[in-house]
Amino acid sequence: MAMKPILINGEWQLGDYVGSFQATNPTTAQTIATEYPISGRGDLELALNAGVAASRELAQSSAEQRATFLEHYADLIEANRQQLSELAHSETGLPIEPRLNSVELPRTVNQLRQAANAVRNHTWELATIDTKANIRSLYGSLAAPVAIFGPNNFPFAYNAIAGSDFASAIAAGNAVIAKGHPSHPATTERLAQLAHEAVVAARLPAASVQLLYGLPDELGLALVSHPLIGAIGFTGSRRAGLALKAAADQAGKAIYLEMSSINPVVMLAGAVTERAEALAAEFAGSCTLGAGQFCTNPGLLILEHSAASNDFIEATKTHFSQYPSLTLLNQGVLAGIEEGISALQDAGAQVLVGGHGLDDGYRYANSLLYVAGNSFLANPQALSHEVFGPVSLIVECADQAEVLQVLDCLEGNLTGSIYSSSAGTDEAFYQVVAERLRAKVGRLLNDKMPTGVAVSSAMNHGGPYPATGHAGWTAVGFPATIRRFAALHCYDNVRESRLPSILQNANPQAIWRLVDEQWSNA
Amino acid sequence: MAMKPILINGEWQLGDYVGSFQATNPTTAQTIATEYPISGRGDLELALNAGVAASRELAQSSAEQRATFLEHYADLIEANRQQLSELAHSETGLPIEPRLNSVELPRTVNQLRQAANAVRNHTWELATIDTKANIRSLYGSLAAPVAIFGPNNFPFAYNAIAGSDFASAIAAGNAVIAKGHPSHPATTERLAQLAHEAVVAARLPAASVQLLYGLPDELGLALVSHPLIGAIGFTGSRRAGLALKAAADQAGKAIYLEMSSINPVVMLAGAVTERAEALAAEFAGSCTLGAGQFCTNPGLLILEHSAASNDFIEATKTHFSQYPSLTLLNQGVLAGIEEGISALQDAGAQVLVGGHGLDDGYRYANSLLYVAGNSFLANPQALSHEVFGPVSLIVECADQAEVLQVLDCLEGNLTGSIYSSSAGTDEAFYQVVAERLRAKVGRLLNDKMPTGVAVSSAMNHGGPYPATGHAGWTAVGFPATIRRFAALHCYDNVRESRLPSILQNANPQAIWRLVDEQWSNA
Repeated sequence: MAMKPILINGEWQLGDYVGSFQATNPTTAQTIATEYPISGRGDLELALNAGVAASRELAQSSAEQRATFLEHYADLIEANRQQLSELAHSETGLPIEPRLNSVELPRTVNQLRQAANAVRNHTWELATIDTKANIRSLYGSLAAPVAIFGPNNFPFAYNAIAGSDFASAIAAGNAVIAKGHPSHPATTERLAQLAHEAVVAARLPAASVQLLYGLPDELGLALVSHPLIGAIGFTGSRRAGLALKAAADQAGKAIYLEMSSINPVVMLAGAVTERAEALAAEFAGSCTLGAGQFCTNPGLLILEHSAASNDFIEATKTHFSQYPSLTLLNQGVLAGIEEGISALQDAGAQVLVGGHGLDDGYRYANSLLYVAGNSFLANPQALSHEVFGPVSLIVECADQAEVLQVLDCLEGNLTGSIYSSSAGTDEAFYQVVAERLRAKVGRLLNDKMPTGVAVSSAMNHGGPYPATGHAGWTAVGFPATIRRFAALHCYDNVRESRLPSILQNANPQAIWRLVDEQWSNA
Repeated sequence: MAMKPILINGEWQLGDYVGSFQATNPTTAQTIATEYPISGRGDLELALNAGVAASRELAQSSAEQRATFLEHYADLIEANRQQLSELAHSETGLPIEPRLNSVELPRTVNQLRQAANAVRNHTWELATIDTKANIRSLYGSLAAPVAIFGPNNFPFAYNAIAGSDFASAIAAGNAVIAKGHPSHPATTERLAQLAHEAVVAARLPAASVQLLYGLPDELGLALVSHPLIGAIGFTGSRRAGLALKAAADQAGKAIYLEMSSINPVVMLAGAVTERAEALAAEFAGSCTLGAGQFCTNPGLLILEHSAASNDFIEATKTHFSQYPSLTLLNQGVLAGIEEGISALQDAGAQVLVGGHGLDDGYRYANSLLYVAGNSFLANPQALSHEVFGPVSLIVECADQAEVLQVLDCLEGNLTGSIYSSSAGTDEAFYQVVAERLRAKVGRLLNDKMPTGVAVSSAMNHGGPYPATGHAGWTAVGFPATIRRFAALHCYDNVRESRLPSILQNANPQAIWRLVDEQWSNA
């Protein structure tokens, strides 16, 4: 079996690979024959040098050209949806319908189109003009390549070569060096072919989009700390994320991380009394959706002990038992679940449902665990680690004070949900809980589970450390997410004809700009 | 002589100090009698705990209350301007007129009022509403204290307890733990008294503003990496900044640094031919202003060799010799200049003017150095280190290609200036130079020296690493600078009455919001 080539500077080439890997079909646990290279230092240097040259061109490219690329790429993905879904299914075990073909692929295409729209309307640039001082600024390209590390759980929507980070980096006018996730290389390869086709059609520089399938750990660190790199986007585990962060920080490179999160859900007493059964169905549905392999999977549920809390727990147990146990992404996820549940048990949690693997392929029973509030407080760190998969922990507290103590032990998270009664009986305690959660999460939800991240201008798919590396940025939602891969460019007394067109006095495209502290499109 | 107290949780107290220090009058080189404490770990913990409680209250405070505080504080500073200017003069040697009393103090007061204005008009929050998905977001308080480390060179405008970082952190709804610069403790003390008076008057929590005069190095590191700290602002040397950055990064804390910068000035051939004498006067004036002790001091000038370049250099020499040599901030600055010039000489630069200390107080002759482009390229790192003071290096290049090679060697800087002919003869090369500089600086100037940072909504007082820690943020200019000390807060399906008022559907204050991707104040 021949080794698959990487994409460097517009050429598919084998490069100076130092090893190889193969993916596995998680449904059958069979290795897939195709071999993909683990690239060496020479490839990295080639990609970086080509990426710098391409980024300098992209920094000067028109918004129209970048938007056209993003839209054409979206069209190509749509035109190849059946093939892409089948490839992704074979490598991830995720169901073709509805997940891959009708949910994730359309979402990915929609993201690319929203990015194109944000490029065209220039909102991400936050063009600001001080007419009195003749000082003007906007967010602009880094003029340097951005390295994107994709995760295992979204072969399309967060793919290093098709997802939100990818679209954002290109939108801002930077080349991308994509490091695909080794779980789904064939999917990534096909996406890269389409991306490259769109690059050529849009006449963007050949190295605007480059692809590596694998890197030894030390070269991953070399990439994120390389003098030529502009910034880094990473979605994945905390362990890998923190290792990359340390290297990037040391080199003064901006790295945007999306790491682990347990996404606490607080069910207030009134809500549980009012609708225990409905809440149980909703919670169990969110926990087991996609085998729980979402960054926003609700891994921790906090509620007060009552007669109704018992009903809620019983109903949740039933749903966990009855909802299907889907195939996991890979053996690593399976091993992580086994290890994670064992650690939770060691720390005092009790398995209510599941807690064991299943026979065929990579599968694990939906698992619901339980711990009393005072036991949680005896060992909060060990009991608030993410277990990536269909595993959630209920913390049942003696009273409201204990609920607050549990919240105070939590680290930064992507989301926090609060369910309260429709009658308003929970209002006073809601305010207290919401204030505590607000400081610990990026997105605060009411009466809603955190799974299902809308690609919205108001979305925050981010949150305080260690859910991400910085509480000010979001990984999803245009235009804000684009600004991560940009620098603030100020022009002081620069002659009118030399200014970027959107900072010139005339505004023929009616772009929204902050002019003398008032937003205006005149 | 009694030890001066620190300000913790609204109380002036001695705390568990571990040492003490005294300032020096740089004009006379005499030690000032007053003793200030170097605080211990107990003080740090007290300040952090009080700061967290205060920050939680500030996060819930009204914009009006924070704005009122900032304005009242500005009024108090103005009412005490004579006393403050005299104190600052005695500790920094900076002239009372015009610098302290008529430039820096009014600027500081203006900054506080601009921050108040930004708080009232809510522009910094970037309120964003997606009506279809019912998702809303804004930038909001960290609900945790911000540590501010002030520099030596601006006793008012960047003072840890009165400057832009201070105003921004409070504006965003966070308490401040100020770590004053040890060069001017009495100035900082007086400002802290006024700030505290304004805190009390505005009925803000007592710990909204706290002050430490000194910390042992290891406690500085403990402060920026403490679990209770929200974020850090630092202005000062690269050495100190990088040490704090490493500690903060490791703990996952956001740190905003403003470190060294040599602020390259490129004089294109047409400009030099057109107006050598005027350019020399402007350059020398900017280099020696305030004894060159500005972060935006033009430390490096690049030009092409020509008959006119010779005229320019000769005229610059004359001005460097004739402009007054002002008193330096402290002995450390003097020692740094001696060391810096010696290093430049070792690396091949030649002293054209100055290069020696002066007899009275802390003074050093205005110093102009020279190196040919090819010599610069032989040792670019050693020749592009900042020398903080009235010291600038001219790099004379053989041709345009060499100018570009020199630019390519530069690190990230706060500013980059390009002077070109009014006739347009430099236009083609301007484009090439501007593109190179754009990627390396935060603020690009035309025909203007970088000193004099306007407090403008469009300002970027920032730039790529290592001038700062991140190219996306500015340390000066409302509203953008406030967002550094904020988190992105998203509300998903949150009931209308529970939303922050500016995210509710009604918009009685006519605040500018991004509603369904259109800016609107309706």
